[in-house]
Amino acid sequence: MIVSSVRITPIAFRDPPLLNASGIHEPYALRSIIEVVTSEGVTGLGETYGDAPVLNALQAIAEHLAGLTVYDLNGLRAIVTRIIAGLPAPAAGALLAPGSQPAKLVANCFSAFEVAFLDAQARLAGLPLHALLGGAVRYEVPFSAYLFFKYARHIEPEQTPDAWGEALTPAQIVDQARRMIELHGFGSIKLKAGTLAPDIEVAAIEALANAFPGVPLRIDPNAAWSMDTALRCADRLGPLIEYYEDPVDGLPAMAELHRRSGLPLATNMVVTSFEQFRTSIALDAVQIVLSDHHYWGGLRESQALGVMCRTFDLGLSMHSNSHLGISLMAMAHLAAATPNLTYACDTHYPWVEEDDEVICGGKREITGGCVRLDDSPGLGVKLDPDRLARAHEAFLGTSIRTRDDEGQMRKYQREYRALRPRY
Amino acid sequence: MIVSSVRITPIAFRDPPLLNASGIHEPYALRSIIEVVTSEGVTGLGETYGDAPVLNALQAIAEHLAGLTVYDLNGLRAIVTRIIAGLPAPAAGALLAPGSQPAKLVANCFSAFEVAFLDAQARLAGLPLHALLGGAVRYEVPFSAYLFFKYARHIEPEQTPDAWGEALTPAQIVDQARRMIELHGFGSIKLKAGTLAPDIEVAAIEALANAFPGVPLRIDPNAAWSMDTALRCADRLGPLIEYYEDPVDGLPAMAELHRRSGLPLATNMVVTSFEQFRTSIALDAVQIVLSDHHYWGGLRESQALGVMCRTFDLGLSMHSNSHLGISLMAMAHLAAATPNLTYACDTHYPWVEEDDEVICGGKREITGGCVRLDDSPGLGVKLDPDRLARAHEAFLGTSIRTRDDEGQMRKYQREYRALRPRY
Repeated sequence: MIVSSVRITPIAFRDPPLLNASGIHEPYALRSIIEVVTSEGVTGLGETYGDAPVLNALQAIAEHLAGLTVYDLNGLRAIVTRIIAGLPAPAAGALLAPGSQPAKLVANCFSAFEVAFLDAQARLAGLPLHALLGGAVRYEVPFSAYLFFKYARHIEPEQTPDAWGEALTPAQIVDQARRMIELHGFGSIKLKAGTLAPDIEVAAIEALANAFPGVPLRIDPNAAWSMDTALRCADRLGPLIEYYEDPVDGLPAMAELHRRSGLPLATNMVVTSFEQFRTSIALDAVQIVLSDHHYWGGLRESQALGVMCRTFDLGLSMHSNSHLGISLMAMAHLAAATPNLTYACDTHYPWVEEDDEVICGGKREITGGCVRLDDSPGLGVKLDPDRLARAHEAFLGTSIRTRDDEGQMRKYQREYRALRPRY
Repeated sequence: MIVSSVRITPIAFRDPPLLNASGIHEPYALRSIIEVVTSEGVTGLGETYGDAPVLNALQAIAEHLAGLTVYDLNGLRAIVTRIIAGLPAPAAGALLAPGSQPAKLVANCFSAFEVAFLDAQARLAGLPLHALLGGAVRYEVPFSAYLFFKYARHIEPEQTPDAWGEALTPAQIVDQARRMIELHGFGSIKLKAGTLAPDIEVAAIEALANAFPGVPLRIDPNAAWSMDTALRCADRLGPLIEYYEDPVDGLPAMAELHRRSGLPLATNMVVTSFEQFRTSIALDAVQIVLSDHHYWGGLRESQALGVMCRTFDLGLSMHSNSHLGISLMAMAHLAAATPNLTYACDTHYPWVEEDDEVICGGKREITGGCVRLDDSPGLGVKLDPDRLARAHEAFLGTSIRTRDDEGQMRKYQREYRALRPRY
């Protein structure tokens, strides 16, 4: 149970040209894979952001973990805090990866190792991770179909088109939803918005409501809308959506929008820390918090967030960034053991190419809209060394070191700026 | 890791004639001892209230736990909730044992078994309980000297006097403190108040401040004071105490007192549930929460309470009822692994007679004001069958079945009523 070695492997995997309020996804997404090996030879796994500030911090911390027991999460937090305090201030990180914001580095890096420590704890005990988290209240964890407006292909001539095709109209979004639901059986749908004109995006929700009657719908403009736009769209969206995610920017604006529209507002932008949670309570700004263990400081802190949401009568859902199977399983185990996480979780996983997964057996299945858990030890996944090596090669082969959707969009539109609000 | 059997043993142990706002302690305090035996033959221990409503509920629940794994805390909660919902409404419980209030039964009963389940988890893994709670940030857990005004002996002629003697004056309280600190080395002091005239009680704090300069002091009138009295006493107490515990009754009154006195207020009376925590935040009613895993719903929920206190910038301390060594160790392990539990914890343990302890080796030591933890498995204590049998005999030998300090005081003063406020 003593940490004998820690390995951080930066990887890259192909990412489609997905549009959002900050611009467009680059051809590769970055992640860091964490392996914590114990004195018994057991390996605990973690996965988190791969952006340079995070990667640098993870690598600096990794050197100081040998000798710690994998149970000593408080000791881990002390080390993470101390090492990060000693690092030079990182360059401004990509705004889209909340964990790469400097103020978030401690929670983020702690989380990455905490998941690996908990995975090792569970493997040492021969238990599934959800058992350590209090026991699964659901073995089938529902996720939502995460739809994006997108181009048919990246602008870089060497990038081959993905299988999903263009989605720039409501009809194309319905096609995307249909394909994704055929593949995975999702029972709820989220639409990333804040990129095309709001009328088109709202029309896409209307088209989805017509095409999939009764299926819960969400829309997420990532704070690209003004108060006027958000209010105007609220009239059309209100009867169609289960929640309205981050239409406007900042806690006060969210509070005002909730007051004026009466709609339940969800967020992964304005409540991303316990401090912001406190402010949100004071303002009655949001009604549903999208948790994300990667930046909330790990699985146990995410469970404390669950208790806080229960206490303050807030809904609890789950946010996603581009990720692979280790993160998927950590999300699923957490959701399985968190009784009041009753919304389907977000995931970018359907956008990952089969060849790019790094776990044994390739991509984990999502069927019937759910990730199915069993009682295999820990997270229930192992790294495939060949796949990991390939993904690391991909990292070495790309010049991307910090996610920059805005800069990527300037390759398409020279004057592009990620404005808030844009509309 | 499967529960094979559960045993609930009601016990009684001698309790001195300690005065408080509700009256006086009866000659015996009641507890329930919980033994959860797993398929491997490992036993997890718990200890909680022994009042009839709790005991009855524990016994009803115990019959339904076989087959559950000791990791399935969510499954345990579901069973506890279901069984209690099916019980006849209990008679009004003793107000002094928050866990025996009917509305608290679920949290209380869940907690009793949760500690035993966690103890078993830790023993199965060969780990100390604090390791499962995130790792000890302190192996020496500080407790406070818990002083009481008291009579020299119980009114019942068959009860022999305790070794502590009478304490009805400031000078006698200083003597009590001196003796308790000599025995245990406590570095902070709490005075139970709300029983004698406030001027005497405040004078006792002044005498303690003179006798023990620099030692943190607390006073707890258990809501027996009116707003006027609490404000008047605040002027004298303010410079002398680290916090002012439950001087007045109810969240709104506590909020008003804090506003008008500026003193930090602590509570184990008006914030005893997550729902009350929420109300307290809205009112800014209290600044320090006294946690108590027995009624906050267990060790993990108490840790979530810790995160909530951190989030809302509240202090975190720990409450005690009359208890034995299993509860002492559960409190110590929890405090050890909760970084922001920075106040010395309350404990009634010094008032327990050596012969009345039920764990092997007799009473656990408190030296240097601290309970010392090590890395022995689980809670680090085992039941002594002979001691347990004696304590169960004591339970069978007393007619007390629900704590009733008010009724007991009527034996001394026929017209006594536990008034709020009294002064």
